[in-house]
Amino acid sequence: MGKHKKSVEVCFMPAIYSSYENPDAIVVVVDILRATSAICTAFMNGASRIIPVGTLDEAKAYKGKGYLVAAERDGIVRDFADFGNSPYNFTVDRVKDQEIVYSTTNGTHSIQIASNSHEVLIGSYLNISSLANYLIEKERDVIILCAGWKSRFNLEDTIYAGALAEKLLQHQHFYTICDAAKASVELWERASDNLFEYIKQVAQYERLRKNNLHDVIEYCHTLDQTNIIPVFKENMVTVLNDRILN
Amino acid sequence: MGKHKKSVEVCFMPAIYSSYENPDAIVVVVDILRATSAICTAFMNGASRIIPVGTLDEAKAYKGKGYLVAAERDGIVRDFADFGNSPYNFTVDRVKDQEIVYSTTNGTHSIQIASNSHEVLIGSYLNISSLANYLIEKERDVIILCAGWKSRFNLEDTIYAGALAEKLLQHQHFYTICDAAKASVELWERASDNLFEYIKQVAQYERLRKNNLHDVIEYCHTLDQTNIIPVFKENMVTVLNDRILN
Repeated sequence: MGKHKKSVEVCFMPAIYSSYENPDAIVVVVDILRATSAICTAFMNGASRIIPVGTLDEAKAYKGKGYLVAAERDGIVRDFADFGNSPYNFTVDRVKDQEIVYSTTNGTHSIQIASNSHEVLIGSYLNISSLANYLIEKERDVIILCAGWKSRFNLEDTIYAGALAEKLLQHQHFYTICDAAKASVELWERASDNLFEYIKQVAQYERLRKNNLHDVIEYCHTLDQTNIIPVFKENMVTVLNDRILN
Repeated sequence: MGKHKKSVEVCFMPAIYSSYENPDAIVVVVDILRATSAICTAFMNGASRIIPVGTLDEAKAYKGKGYLVAAERDGIVRDFADFGNSPYNFTVDRVKDQEIVYSTTNGTHSIQIASNSHEVLIGSYLNISSLANYLIEKERDVIILCAGWKSRFNLEDTIYAGALAEKLLQHQHFYTICDAAKASVELWERASDNLFEYIKQVAQYERLRKNNLHDVIEYCHTLDQTNIIPVFKENMVTVLNDRILN
């Protein structure tokens, strides 16, 4: 690992992020099922910006100010909200040129705690190659921050972290001494032959299935649908300007 | 998963243990390189009990009371201590019938936070089959608590967790819906063909090698050297009585 090489690390859950903090790093926040996949989808369909909020009270307050609000808990759209949290809800007719408030617990917390880093990007399979290329261009340390589930490890974010880390580590700028990154790459290698079948074993699959919300899982594991890279700055998510029209 | 089945969960680091706490569960604490391997070795060689302490100050205080003390930091045996933390230090001539204080940061913390569970056992490869058989007999929920490294994930404890979880999950009493347990088993399956070669890639291997302490790594990955199962109770580790003479 030469002195110019940049590190790739994977943090499995926000609860341990403090031991990864690095003001020079770019942090990629990942909540594959479903927050970061939904955020990418909203921008693909023309949303102008997204405000991620952690609590339903915050979401409700924004609704009072006239924002479009996506908010559900346990599969039920909240009565004050415009629609739920599935990527499928972020259709062009609903979101084009709109500011949207997205209420999520795990995803929002991860996005917010990473904000003392150099840059916070939103990762999903939908934009994985574009994101990898951007990170390779920037030549900075990278931390892939998995939202996890209620402070625990989850497989779907880890598998994605492995997919992204593998792309970076194939490039000479990057190295890793992070056991979590190595484990993620190995799990991704195991899953990638048949990603959707593999994902059926994860705990979140069953949680979504029980609420009849599992129709989005295959979509959330579809690679390279967009070049858009959402970025979190000053409490809202917009898109990196140089990537919008790629 | 029938109502009588017991769960197997893996907690990757003490920092997130609170989301696993279960007073009915047996917790297996794992710090393969090197605390839990050293503790098993001490009992194999006749130690009567071990007091795990977290700080060097505590270790020093015990030394003042006449205890044998194992304490090192960054590979250097502390001047007040009798020997360092390597399993190889716990020879019969030193430890037989002795009370020993073992100073370790990650391992001790893990052992202590688990003490509100039904029982806290010390796991290593050296006693893995005996431990698995005991857990199968007891038919209780099992949490495998990896000590990790400075609140991060580490591969060597995870691989062991996978080895133990796989033994339990082959038995009809157990099930898991824990993504961390599933990931651990998959990583173990990948590592088990050539465990010692696999372990050479983990971050802790390099840390030990730098301090010329890596001679114990192969020993710490040797299966089934003893039937002894160390148990933590009332701030000290002894052995389960019914296993001593097996």
